Amino acid sequence: MYHINIIAIGKNKDAWIEQGIEHYLTLLKKSARVSLIIIPDIKNSKNLSTEELKKEEARQLQKSLKSGYRVALSDRGRQTTSENFAVVLQQMMSHSDGCDFIIGGIYGLDDSIMQSAQLILSLSPMTMSHRLIRPVLLEQLYRAFSIISGGQYHK
Amino acid sequence: MYHINIIAIGKNKDAWIEQGIEHYLTLLKKSARVSLIIIPDIKNSKNLSTEELKKEEARQLQKSLKSGYRVALSDRGRQTTSENFAVVLQQMMSHSDGCDFIIGGIYGLDDSIMQSAQLILSLSPMTMSHRLIRPVLLEQLYRAFSIISGGQYHK
Repeated sequence: MYHINIIAIGKNKDAWIEQGIEHYLTLLKKSARVSLIIIPDIKNSKNLSTEELKKEEARQLQKSLKSGYRVALSDRGRQTTSENFAVVLQQMMSHSDGCDFIIGGIYGLDDSIMQSAQLILSLSPMTMSHRLIRPVLLEQLYRAFSIISGGQYHK
Repeated sequence: MYHINIIAIGKNKDAWIEQGIEHYLTLLKKSARVSLIIIPDIKNSKNLSTEELKKEEARQLQKSLKSGYRVALSDRGRQTTSENFAVVLQQMMSHSDGCDFIIGGIYGLDDSIMQSAQLILSLSPMTMSHRLIRPVLLEQLYRAFSIISGGQYHK
């Protein structure tokens, strides 16, 4: 089964986001082995500039990256429809055993992470909360697997 | 205070989405009077074609429309950044007392609703669940008001 690791900065603060994530992780169990890996917020981040914080987050992210294929999420990344995302996911599955989806902290991802990614993906040109984006990404993954299998979810 | 009605088809099924909506409605209280109006799913919809269902939903939606300014949500609508959405919202506030954001059912909105809208807005080129889109839209409204007031939420 294909491995998908979603690696994100900052614990889920809200129970409803946690439950939304669990909702989609359960639905995805038939299609892939999806794990959400949370890197705790960097301590004493108030003493750091935005760039320093992003670099420290990048250092922590590097330790958790697992797969050869990396997808970095950014509102400035490549936009796609759900149907095309399903095609992209199928291509990823035929070329790798697993992939990492990387979600940054409140200021997004450091350039070093962006540059190491095979794909920079934008789910929306709008800036979305780095926590709310987690269930949104999981829903797109579930939708993509439904498109691939011809399921009822994406009609 | 500016009125924003979000009019959507189909009850919230999941408690976490309900809680996500409540989370943002509470945050928005300082900025606007935001109401979520849910139109129940059309009964016996299995006997209807997709087009018939969308037309029946449009008839029900028409009864709940309240404001002069209408924004229809569609993945094929106009895309915008959060910063530009704040500008659009400010323009709406200076030209109207309130607005309706209209979210369709599982097949989206009927053309008659789209054509009656001043703005067709896309939050993402990807197809998003017509339920999950509710907290996502509310977060964008909260972010827009934060941009307008120079608040900390959108840094």
